[in-house]
Amino acid sequence: MERKLTVELGQRSYDVLIGPGKLAGLGEFARGIDGVEFAVVVTDSTVARLHGNQAVDSLTQAGLRVGLIEFAAGEENKTLGSYGHVMDALLTLEPPIDRNTLIVALGGGVAGDLAGFVAATALRGLRWLQCPTTLLADVDASVGGKTAVDHPAGKNLIGAFHQPRGVLIDVATLKTLSAEALADGLAECVKHAVIRDGQLLEFMEGNVDAILSRDADILTDLIGRNVAIKAAVVSADETEAGQRAHLNLGHTIGHAIEIADGYGEVSHGQAVSLGMLAACHLAAARGLIELDLCRRIEDLLRRLGLPTRRAGMDTAQLWRIMQHDKKARGGQVRMILPVTLGAVAAFDDVTPEQLAAALAELAD
Amino acid sequence: MERKLTVELGQRSYDVLIGPGKLAGLGEFARGIDGVEFAVVVTDSTVARLHGNQAVDSLTQAGLRVGLIEFAAGEENKTLGSYGHVMDALLTLEPPIDRNTLIVALGGGVAGDLAGFVAATALRGLRWLQCPTTLLADVDASVGGKTAVDHPAGKNLIGAFHQPRGVLIDVATLKTLSAEALADGLAECVKHAVIRDGQLLEFMEGNVDAILSRDADILTDLIGRNVAIKAAVVSADETEAGQRAHLNLGHTIGHAIEIADGYGEVSHGQAVSLGMLAACHLAAARGLIELDLCRRIEDLLRRLGLPTRRAGMDTAQLWRIMQHDKKARGGQVRMILPVTLGAVAAFDDVTPEQLAAALAELAD
Repeated sequence: MERKLTVELGQRSYDVLIGPGKLAGLGEFARGIDGVEFAVVVTDSTVARLHGNQAVDSLTQAGLRVGLIEFAAGEENKTLGSYGHVMDALLTLEPPIDRNTLIVALGGGVAGDLAGFVAATALRGLRWLQCPTTLLADVDASVGGKTAVDHPAGKNLIGAFHQPRGVLIDVATLKTLSAEALADGLAECVKHAVIRDGQLLEFMEGNVDAILSRDADILTDLIGRNVAIKAAVVSADETEAGQRAHLNLGHTIGHAIEIADGYGEVSHGQAVSLGMLAACHLAAARGLIELDLCRRIEDLLRRLGLPTRRAGMDTAQLWRIMQHDKKARGGQVRMILPVTLGAVAAFDDVTPEQLAAALAELAD
Repeated sequence: MERKLTVELGQRSYDVLIGPGKLAGLGEFARGIDGVEFAVVVTDSTVARLHGNQAVDSLTQAGLRVGLIEFAAGEENKTLGSYGHVMDALLTLEPPIDRNTLIVALGGGVAGDLAGFVAATALRGLRWLQCPTTLLADVDASVGGKTAVDHPAGKNLIGAFHQPRGVLIDVATLKTLSAEALADGLAECVKHAVIRDGQLLEFMEGNVDAILSRDADILTDLIGRNVAIKAAVVSADETEAGQRAHLNLGHTIGHAIEIADGYGEVSHGQAVSLGMLAACHLAAARGLIELDLCRRIEDLLRRLGLPTRRAGMDTAQLWRIMQHDKKARGGQVRMILPVTLGAVAAFDDVTPEQLAAALAELAD
């Protein structure tokens, strides 16, 4: 099974190809981009070991000159320091890069965000391809053109919008993924279902075992459905002025949990799982959705290996962090809440007291 | 005398206001931008002392909250290190910045390029205003949306295209400029005349004394004419695919001279003066222009305080550096040469031998 979707962005439109073995087609895809003779793969040390050779071989066999730049694996390395390191390596390659040089971001979200930011800013912008190797990157970071690094003051505070020329999603790479990393991606899949697509929720509820055993056809279908949702949202709103904010469901609280714990203590997907469930309880308390929907979402998250219970969260601390979120305006927290299964809206009037009550639902 | 021009870039169009005392209108201009309540002035230590208070006072009087971030003055500080320093300061302001925060780049080319790159990448892009305080920044960096920092491997290798919301050019700030810094800007003015506007060449030839004595009306007229030329070129070709490359007249050789000497040994304008004259001699040797035009341009450059003679240039070294220029493709040097007064074209077939012959014309 294969899927091909187009992210519609006018002149910056690009294709997303999904299926097992897609990485073998990287070289052919890259050679098809006008003027490209030199491709530089940017990847982390773990992914370099697992998939680096395959990417380099495919590009080489397509007749391209190939470079490989590695950075230390780990969310904690998505920094301006790593960016500088990759940029130093890129700008001192011999023979030197030029404006036709193609960047290939190979790896999870960190590789995509970091290599994408390098592509956005090297020589004021190089073309790039994304080859995500985690489910989270497949369904989230691979569509939207968001690139960034973190700063001690917050996640993704330094970056740019820079659309790739194409995305190759090889579902075979998901075989090497840890259970926790798989669950991180599944949290985003549930999010997509809640904000746009009740049928996707049913699909996941009916295929938990196949998903967890990495069935290639089911994963291709799952990723295709999710990319389609994200692509539709992003196409309608490229720079996040309006409905793209819907994708932040669970993320405002989730990011705050990540920061409160210190990055790396709780995974992004785990934090989103908790944040999404808290947002559902906020919505239920306002009468926007039934408590039954909260329970249904909670049940699916748990079956997918995601946390749904957490005691001892410090509401005051989380609220302070949420006020620093770059989506906050003038200190007012904006929250995305479900209004029915498959639809959400933005709310600017959530209070710390309401947040505390919702978090209490996760504690018992 | 005042001038107002519009840089036409569709949705990203913006105005350039030129005249004495324009900095006093900064606050009013900033307050007129939708949603802006917080403005952060980014400037270097020298300009902060000369004009920082005026900028901050104007913004404060307009009712805005105001921050000021300073970095060490000097071309050698246009680095990723300074970028990180400014970004650290910006991202830790209290209360924190948000997506409505406005960046005000106050200063010469370094401040514009560095603060512009910060604006392009903080929270994935903030709106910004440019308040250039050198003639070079007035006529060159203030139009085009190019932002960047340098890298040991070359100038402006890291950056982004990010159009400002407006440019305020206060010609009164040019009173504090050194003679050498004024000449740096005048080199770009001569360049604009050579590539697009024979009448501008005549205007400058007829007003050398008024220009050098910083006559406010003549400077306003001069800057207006130059901004109009640059704006027309940039509007037609925002991302440098075609005729925007014409602005590189004198810069391919000029950048190489700067690198060969080590940044800071020869000023940008001095290097462009030499590079432009070498390009004229290359064109004359090909029969594209008369030698008389070379002499006329040389004469004006000299009267404006710019160098036109230089012995002992190492052609092989300069050629190697030119092959590394980010505008070079696959190692082939692309040169912009005049084809008559007011028109230029790109040539891909210049040889090191031809360059050596042209440089020899500057040596005697």
